[in-house]
Amino acid sequence: MKPLIGVGMVGYAFMGRTHSQAWRNVTAFFDLPVTPSMAVLAGRSRERAAAAAAELGWAAVETDWRELIRRDDVQLVDICTPGDSHAEIAIAALEAGKHVICEKPLANTVAEAEAMAEAASEAAARGVRSMVAFNYRRVPAIALARRFVAEGRLGEIRHVRAQYLQDWIVDPEFPLVWRLRKEQAGSGALGDIGAHIVDAAQFVTGQLLTGVSAITETFVKERPLAEDADGLSGGSRTGGRGEVTVDDAALFIGRFDGGALGSFEATRFATGRKNALRLEVNGSRGSLAFDFEAMNELWFHDETEPDAGFRRILVTEPGHPYMEAWWPPGHGLGYEHTFTHEVRDFLAAVAAGTDPSPSFQDGLRVQRVLAAVERSAANDSRWTPL
Amino acid sequence: MKPLIGVGMVGYAFMGRTHSQAWRNVTAFFDLPVTPSMAVLAGRSRERAAAAAAELGWAAVETDWRELIRRDDVQLVDICTPGDSHAEIAIAALEAGKHVICEKPLANTVAEAEAMAEAASEAAARGVRSMVAFNYRRVPAIALARRFVAEGRLGEIRHVRAQYLQDWIVDPEFPLVWRLRKEQAGSGALGDIGAHIVDAAQFVTGQLLTGVSAITETFVKERPLAEDADGLSGGSRTGGRGEVTVDDAALFIGRFDGGALGSFEATRFATGRKNALRLEVNGSRGSLAFDFEAMNELWFHDETEPDAGFRRILVTEPGHPYMEAWWPPGHGLGYEHTFTHEVRDFLAAVAAGTDPSPSFQDGLRVQRVLAAVERSAANDSRWTPL
Amino acid sequence: MKPLIGVGMVGYAFMGRTHSQAWRNVTAFFDLPVTPSMAVLAGRSRERAAAAAAELGWAAVETDWRELIRRDDVQLVDICTPGDSHAEIAIAALEAGKHVICEKPLANTVAEAEAMAEAASEAAARGVRSMVAFNYRRVPAIALARRFVAEGRLGEIRHVRAQYLQDWIVDPEFPLVWRLRKEQAGSGALGDIGAHIVDAAQFVTGQLLTGVSAITETFVKERPLAEDADGLSGGSRTGGRGEVTVDDAALFIGRFDGGALGSFEATRFATGRKNALRLEVNGSRGSLAFDFEAMNELWFHDETEPDAGFRRILVTEPGHPYMEAWWPPGHGLGYEHTFTHEVRDFLAAVAAGTDPSPSFQDGLRVQRVLAAVERSAANDSRWTPL
Amino acid sequence: MKPLIGVGMVGYAFMGRTHSQAWRNVTAFFDLPVTPSMAVLAGRSRERAAAAAAELGWAAVETDWRELIRRDDVQLVDICTPGDSHAEIAIAALEAGKHVICEKPLANTVAEAEAMAEAASEAAARGVRSMVAFNYRRVPAIALARRFVAEGRLGEIRHVRAQYLQDWIVDPEFPLVWRLRKEQAGSGALGDIGAHIVDAAQFVTGQLLTGVSAITETFVKERPLAEDADGLSGGSRTGGRGEVTVDDAALFIGRFDGGALGSFEATRFATGRKNALRLEVNGSRGSLAFDFEAMNELWFHDETEPDAGFRRILVTEPGHPYMEAWWPPGHGLGYEHTFTHEVRDFLAAVAAGTDPSPSFQDGLRVQRVLAAVERSAANDSRWTPL
Repeated sequence: MKPLIGVGMVGYAFMGRTHSQAWRNVTAFFDLPVTPSMAVLAGRSRERAAAAAAELGWAAVETDWRELIRRDDVQLVDICTPGDSHAEIAIAALEAGKHVICEKPLANTVAEAEAMAEAASEAAARGVRSMVAFNYRRVPAIALARRFVAEGRLGEIRHVRAQYLQDWIVDPEFPLVWRLRKEQAGSGALGDIGAHIVDAAQFVTGQLLTGVSAITETFVKERPLAEDADGLSGGSRTGGRGEVTVDDAALFIGRFDGGALGSFEATRFATGRKNALRLEVNGSRGSLAFDFEAMNELWFHDETEPDAGFRRILVTEPGHPYMEAWWPPGHGLGYEHTFTHEVRDFLAAVAAGTDPSPSFQDGLRVQRVLAAVERSAANDSRWTPL
Repeated sequence: MKPLIGVGMVGYAFMGRTHSQAWRNVTAFFDLPVTPSMAVLAGRSRERAAAAAAELGWAAVETDWRELIRRDDVQLVDICTPGDSHAEIAIAALEAGKHVICEKPLANTVAEAEAMAEAASEAAARGVRSMVAFNYRRVPAIALARRFVAEGRLGEIRHVRAQYLQDWIVDPEFPLVWRLRKEQAGSGALGDIGAHIVDAAQFVTGQLLTGVSAITETFVKERPLAEDADGLSGGSRTGGRGEVTVDDAALFIGRFDGGALGSFEATRFATGRKNALRLEVNGSRGSLAFDFEAMNELWFHDETEPDAGFRRILVTEPGHPYMEAWWPPGHGLGYEHTFTHEVRDFLAAVAAGTDPSPSFQDGLRVQRVLAAVERSAANDSRWTPL
Repeated sequence: MKPLIGVGMVGYAFMGRTHSQAWRNVTAFFDLPVTPSMAVLAGRSRERAAAAAAELGWAAVETDWRELIRRDDVQLVDICTPGDSHAEIAIAALEAGKHVICEKPLANTVAEAEAMAEAASEAAARGVRSMVAFNYRRVPAIALARRFVAEGRLGEIRHVRAQYLQDWIVDPEFPLVWRLRKEQAGSGALGDIGAHIVDAAQFVTGQLLTGVSAITETFVKERPLAEDADGLSGGSRTGGRGEVTVDDAALFIGRFDGGALGSFEATRFATGRKNALRLEVNGSRGSLAFDFEAMNELWFHDETEPDAGFRRILVTEPGHPYMEAWWPPGHGLGYEHTFTHEVRDFLAAVAAGTDPSPSFQDGLRVQRVLAAVERSAANDSRWTPL
Repeated sequence: MKPLIGVGMVGYAFMGRTHSQAWRNVTAFFDLPVTPSMAVLAGRSRERAAAAAAELGWAAVETDWRELIRRDDVQLVDICTPGDSHAEIAIAALEAGKHVICEKPLANTVAEAEAMAEAASEAAARGVRSMVAFNYRRVPAIALARRFVAEGRLGEIRHVRAQYLQDWIVDPEFPLVWRLRKEQAGSGALGDIGAHIVDAAQFVTGQLLTGVSAITETFVKERPLAEDADGLSGGSRTGGRGEVTVDDAALFIGRFDGGALGSFEATRFATGRKNALRLEVNGSRGSLAFDFEAMNELWFHDETEPDAGFRRILVTEPGHPYMEAWWPPGHGLGYEHTFTHEVRDFLAAVAAGTDPSPSFQDGLRVQRVLAAVERSAANDSRWTPL
């Protein structure tokens, strides 16, 4: 029997559900040296947390995350709360010697992210591991894209075109959920989905952004108040309206340290685009294109072959990243397994005693890009170096 | 607490893995009146069955399916073996008063399928339920296609174009696995994947085939022998070659009882097509198109709207079949959840005391189509009525 | 100055317009040893023919095609009439020593086509050239497909999937135009568009059909009468209804002399498909896919390359067939230039004193396939060898 | 007989060829009150101009554009030269009372464009017409997109995503053609193709840009010298290398006067993208997407319909802009007919005595955007109002 590693998860909304699915299934597909045990779920309301735990498969419940960290049956803390609590929970967990996987964006401010990265660095010295949950890195097609770039199949990278397009708040009567409040969410489309394309672009190209110029906009300034609304769906209306304090859309252009130019757009107002995380990369020898709405496909153009053209690689072959574990070719995966792969990689690193990636330091770098975007947007779009 | 229903699964290869995934996850997403308990897995080799049970989450192991049926903790039998054993296991289970879900094709011969349908009919009179596992009916996009036709949004159906294209045996050195032996598999591409498109076409249109004209072919007549090869991947070569005794491809044209014409093609030699179950339906008011390689999309053309065109419906909205249970729009599902939905529907029917669909009778109807295809192909492609 | 070759065109409806466009523009793009002169247009109504000639650029008008053939300024006759007059005109022209390009299908019956092929053969001995106008061979993407197969890039061909889908008579009130009358059109979808996919399939694979099994159907049996209706658009209604005497759809399966299986479908009832001539070819080393609705694209899968997938070749590069003459890459061509290329090839052959392709003999072969389809459909779908 | 209008064209390279094609064919498809006569072609080399005239169908040749303007048989001047000569030729022609159609960008500097717009305005008062040749407005799909926005089918516009991606100079050994020299071309990708997406975005949305923030880049700083190279293809190498003095790529973000945000990218380094003029527009009620590489398709999402999704409208129906004149549905057009439509609209305006669109004033507005992009890029990407 493999050693068990007890997991405590804080939060059980959208991300809590996806992470639970990952913990529940990872060992059915991946042969890991440790076996995760879904030990405890923390949520403020005992009643609701207990219902969620029953549904999602957690053995116990706590109403205070501090208690969760304190438990002996928890060796690993999974943080699925809004961004305003990430720093406090993560730092406490790391100091208590618990491995930490934390949802993105790492924090709501650069200062918090710096403190977290420092805590992670100190913890790592003590063998305690941490990872920020940029799950889209674990889409097999995006992992394959990274491999292609790393192998030089694109040559010198010239262009990155990254968009994350959603439309769930196009209706001005959609209520003022926590994701539209700066104090909880930190920012709007920028931090929620813009963070993903910044990370994906840097991950796939292996280059870091060196500066940006940006504009942001809030199209709908006020929305109906509601309570018990989780991040994506509206709860019950309470009457009255409140101010939207985050961006609806963020557009920026930038430069990478390897010479590439980047164009970025994150918006919740792209009517008809549901979860279109799109990435296109052009290099001197080839190009790549990806759209999460067709997540099992990677489009690759190899300029060096005769009669070249973008080809649709169905990323479901045994040789493709993560795919050895799954179904026969052509039998695609769904969204949730980005988390299964994330958890797999985190557990493998914990068991091997190595630092998983992306680290809190990587998360901090993304946070700095988000902050630079906000500064540029507030400062006449002026070029803002990183 | 909801009542438990004990599940016993026979077989643990490809289909066993997908069904296990469904049993393990169904209650995390669907609110059902009963809770399945993964009680026991049966396989001939105790060692291998035990390893599979541990990996897939089954509590116990049997080496004889008769023992599995006999157990008190088993109220429901899930048959994931090759087609040559379906009839015997299913009939025994039904007679023992166990609900049965059976992989497709229902049987290897019409005679077996008839016996199974009769047993199912008798069992139903005693409140024992049965279902044949045409999982593709539970792709949300295909269920939505059925809804569109049933609502009249396509008008009178004129054409069905159904293809199931794979390429996993294009290489003539791919070994002689059981799926290429008539005595175990019954037929080749015809029964394995042709059965799916016959069922899908009849399900979506609500029409039954009334006759067919067919050709079949075995492109590669001999292949290397191998042992321990499961259905899709080759095991270790044992030296020597053996005869391929099933079809590599089956093409047929037919007529439906509502007046539509159908064109069908099932092949394992469509190089580059991995799991392309494609369905196109043309009616007097509109058309539909689907390809499983992009399983979260349904293409719909509404002739009655101005500036009409095929539109890509991302079948991930709460109002779409099964999708209320899942992630936000645009966060697609993978192959495995066709089984999660299947199990959900079966459990719901069992709990409600209603007959699930597709029934063994439906499976028998498909079997008769497969037999007619083989007869026509053997008889100068002559029209073969059903 | 290059020698002029006088062209006389018979008919000025849809095909007459496309051919005129080709004659008018060919020398602006292709460097040919002869220059076509648009000498004379023949049509039964002098008034209408004169109007068409003015619009389309023809220098003179005749009301009897026999006069057109007789003229000294006509060295080449272009036949754009319905199929019932092809044989008479073509044979007369060839006997008069005029080169002939004749619209497809070559004739309305095999007997006529045989007479035409014989006349063509005799004329060829005297240096008089003839060609049947299967224009889709001259889509650059289809010509490139042929090149790929000829070069062995697909290996051994296993499957051909050919469809020609239109929807212009889905409305039962669309009138009874000549294309729906057997005495003029010979057959319906079969001869009009089915002929194209038979030719395209044989051309691309380099294989000939050896037998077929077929069904045909006329969905709408009666339609409003109309006069002055050309082939595709309805003229003015005259009251009353008449019988549709041709097929609305034809489906057939067949075998090729190189071992491939073929599935064919020609229909005018595929709602939402406007001019979807689709061809998919699977071979042991690769596959091809084409849809005329995206005529500048050829999809090619090369099984021998790593991370293979169907790639979209934009067939607009200088090295692609016919494309040296045109715009820079990515600036696609339209439908009409299939005719420009056809005329180019015909003039080049005439000037070189070689036999152009496809010959009347090729047209006869297609005619025999059409006849076999009709015989099989009338004879219980029985296998009908060629 | 309709009155003739004599056309004199200056330049005969790429644009000269496309315009010639338009003049030669426009009356075969469109019923216009005037008939263009291809009177005279001007080029500096008499020999080459004469060869081009013979090939393209021009009746006479001049070696000095001033002579062309002076001729009595020229009532309309078509300017197809590089941007550095536009102002001089256009102003002289307008002053001589000749109607002028001028290639884009209108000029190489704002000052020149202002002078041209002023000359156009004065000429208009005398009944002399002028138009700048933003041909992509005349892609039927783009004209239909404009119609949809104007009809309110998209609601309030939120986002414009405009890209013009080419790859013809990815190879660093591609020579230093005139399009890479600032003194002739004015700018690089920005003026050549960026001008098109600025115009298309403003045209489709009916909104004007109010400010931009930009970066530009020249990836390859030096290239081989060559002579006789026209704009797109390299001539013969002369030895040595010269400096590239224009941008290879320009990225900018901006705001429109109706509240929309815009993201723009023009590049000649998007490997595998040949002529991908892409436009995506998101509004509160719907969205549009277009890619010139599939020029006969417009993708439209109507948020107000049930089961919404982007639908592929084949813009080949009689009711679509310009399409009444052409082939049956599904028989697409090619690149060249953007010019045929342009010439049609210009002739119609000239005949009707109305001002055609886009005017030189519109061309000036685009020029100001290009200048603002360059200023912003040179000034730390600072926001640059228009």
